[in-house]
Amino acid sequence: MNIISFPSRAEWPQLLARPVQSTQQIEAVVAPILAQVREQGDAALIELAQKFDKTDLSQSGLEVSRAELDAAEEQLSDELKAAIRQAYQNIRLFHERQKQPVEKIETMPGVVCWRRSVGIEKVGLYIPGGTAPLFSTVLMLGVPAQLAGCREVVLCTPSNHPAIYFAARLVGVTKVFRVGGAQAIAAMAYGTESIPQVYKIFGPGNQYVTAAKMLVAKEGVAIDMPAGPSEVAVYADDSAVPAFVAADLLSQAEHGADSQVLLVSTSKKLVELVNLALPTQLSKLPREALATKALENSKAILVESQADAIELLNAYAAEHLILSVDNAEAVAEQITNAGSIFLGNYTPESAGDYASGTNHTLPTNGFARAYSGVSLDSFVKKITVQQISPEGLQALGPVVEAMAEAESLDAHKRAVRLRLARLAEANPA
Amino acid sequence: MNIISFPSRAEWPQLLARPVQSTQQIEAVVAPILAQVREQGDAALIELAQKFDKTDLSQSGLEVSRAELDAAEEQLSDELKAAIRQAYQNIRLFHERQKQPVEKIETMPGVVCWRRSVGIEKVGLYIPGGTAPLFSTVLMLGVPAQLAGCREVVLCTPSNHPAIYFAARLVGVTKVFRVGGAQAIAAMAYGTESIPQVYKIFGPGNQYVTAAKMLVAKEGVAIDMPAGPSEVAVYADDSAVPAFVAADLLSQAEHGADSQVLLVSTSKKLVELVNLALPTQLSKLPREALATKALENSKAILVESQADAIELLNAYAAEHLILSVDNAEAVAEQITNAGSIFLGNYTPESAGDYASGTNHTLPTNGFARAYSGVSLDSFVKKITVQQISPEGLQALGPVVEAMAEAESLDAHKRAVRLRLARLAEANPA
Repeated sequence: MNIISFPSRAEWPQLLARPVQSTQQIEAVVAPILAQVREQGDAALIELAQKFDKTDLSQSGLEVSRAELDAAEEQLSDELKAAIRQAYQNIRLFHERQKQPVEKIETMPGVVCWRRSVGIEKVGLYIPGGTAPLFSTVLMLGVPAQLAGCREVVLCTPSNHPAIYFAARLVGVTKVFRVGGAQAIAAMAYGTESIPQVYKIFGPGNQYVTAAKMLVAKEGVAIDMPAGPSEVAVYADDSAVPAFVAADLLSQAEHGADSQVLLVSTSKKLVELVNLALPTQLSKLPREALATKALENSKAILVESQADAIELLNAYAAEHLILSVDNAEAVAEQITNAGSIFLGNYTPESAGDYASGTNHTLPTNGFARAYSGVSLDSFVKKITVQQISPEGLQALGPVVEAMAEAESLDAHKRAVRLRLARLAEANPA
Repeated sequence: MNIISFPSRAEWPQLLARPVQSTQQIEAVVAPILAQVREQGDAALIELAQKFDKTDLSQSGLEVSRAELDAAEEQLSDELKAAIRQAYQNIRLFHERQKQPVEKIETMPGVVCWRRSVGIEKVGLYIPGGTAPLFSTVLMLGVPAQLAGCREVVLCTPSNHPAIYFAARLVGVTKVFRVGGAQAIAAMAYGTESIPQVYKIFGPGNQYVTAAKMLVAKEGVAIDMPAGPSEVAVYADDSAVPAFVAADLLSQAEHGADSQVLLVSTSKKLVELVNLALPTQLSKLPREALATKALENSKAILVESQADAIELLNAYAAEHLILSVDNAEAVAEQITNAGSIFLGNYTPESAGDYASGTNHTLPTNGFARAYSGVSLDSFVKKITVQQISPEGLQALGPVVEAMAEAESLDAHKRAVRLRLARLAEANPA
């Protein structure tokens, strides 16, 4: 890691900047794919799978059959199935507690307002192919969709890994399609003969998938959040175990060469010990090459004080923030920008990535300044409802009339006036 | 209104379709404005105000002074100020109850997870100029920003109406700038010498403002939601007062020629009575021309049954839905797509537009299928936090290891393995 000692505040923005991603070129590739799927539906999906993935979907069909999904269970070890079931339970428990009961609020006598949470009727989940079969993400997106009561949960994935199918069954995904890439996003955004159109699309993907999501979002299809490379910031002091810190940094670095890894400390000694631990651990990793590349771009920043560390971490707004410091919980209270926070020596990021119960779909790239990670809220709409009694309108009406008049919206005023006049007729003073 | 009697389901999509807005031309106008503000900052804002609004901001300065804001109070009637204060109180009460207490959840023994709500540090509110000074929108956006504890609340508006300044003071807006149009969105998205960069932008505007918001959203700046023309659907039966229904339809129609107005009923008699009441009421409106135009495009749809009505309303996904039917609350329970619902004869949309307490920034254009209206949630991020004890990790660790291994993420597994090994060393069995 590159060690940067006591940088001035003026240097912070450059140190904390994420690599800028030029999206124009990728969008130029993706836009015609979206248009083709919109116009040609299933035929486009079959053609594009042949072109990009050398896969012949005309034989297998787009949809994964119930029999294929059922068969997945037999292909997994009992240990893995038990692990997935335990993770499912923990994630379910944590997200279930995010349900908010309906509460009727009388803002003035006779004026009653409330909110109803209603699951988004149709949602789409995307799970990429590639080397790592992200069945954990099926749980992270599928569990809140299930709890929200989404009626149609569509999963598009080019992977046919049995753990993905098993997880899809567990969370009650209604339809699985063997479609990947930008064309899968298009299919769910616009609908095709086989794939239902959905109202919100979730899930990770490469830069083409990400660009496709941003483009359909501009057209009004909701998406989970904008995406960038995964990242971790670790704030550690002398109470941290250097080998654990090194392991956490590496578990981020192995995601890809563009992973962002940041270590912040007030202790020169800790930074040096972590740096010593890294090469040994690195050499044991199957993904050593990827992780080495990510580490080359990573930084260890020495700061003067805990106050500086907190300020720097808030400026960075990490997706994952590990606080391996003595007073971790107190520090967490002062963090204003982060996706998810992990406290102390025995809370590795991996726990939250898989099974502790929190969601692992989190804002990267500084988006934690404005965005939350995925939660039950991401799968529901909150519809406000109000009911006003005649007496309530008699009290509230004049307020509405005065404001509508001042905004020059006369019909708004009259909608109240007419009702108050009717009430006055019915009950003359 | 155009009366459509018992259309077949095949006709619904066309009947319920919103006018398609071609955004390409507008984006072509807006993109260079965004680029100019990004590059030239304040100088661009001054030049563009001169060009588009014939306003010389170099004299007045961009920021509205504290003295100007303070002076607004004296220019308003006591009645209007009292009305604004009452609306403020009701909106505050309703949004305050949306706060969620921190709840620590032990998903497994020793595995504790929770969520912290933290206000987005810097938010920007946009309030358009034009004929109607939308001080009510200042309340609707400013109150939840204030409750969320957003530290910087920037308001850009080309209007200098005292009610807007008065409302801005009331909700604790930190800075007000006399900047309008797409350039105001750019200023808040990128920051200028005078205007702070914000992380999320809220508020209504014309199609240039809307296009600017969508473009900066694609760059990662959060926005409240995509926007379209305002709309109301009224579902009425013979228990509805026709004059009230007509008044509610008109209070939507007066917003603009593109306002969407829909009446749904099982009663031919009700539709005819409403149609009779419309011309009389219309003739009394100062905005008669606008409302007449909107009504020309509006529809009254007769359906066979309440079940059909509910299905049609859910397919439409109205921004505002008025249920003037006998069993309104029961019907509301079956509504899955709507921004805000108004029950019964004495709950006009105007009440929610101004002062009952619910938010009036709501999803239009069918976006209610996936989006909620603005609420306290719109101004906070929910950061997840977790703390795992050594015992907790001993129970959860093997689950994480099994899943990480199956996803071929070896470093994720090792981050757990290392810790479990350390615990085993410390406490040999």
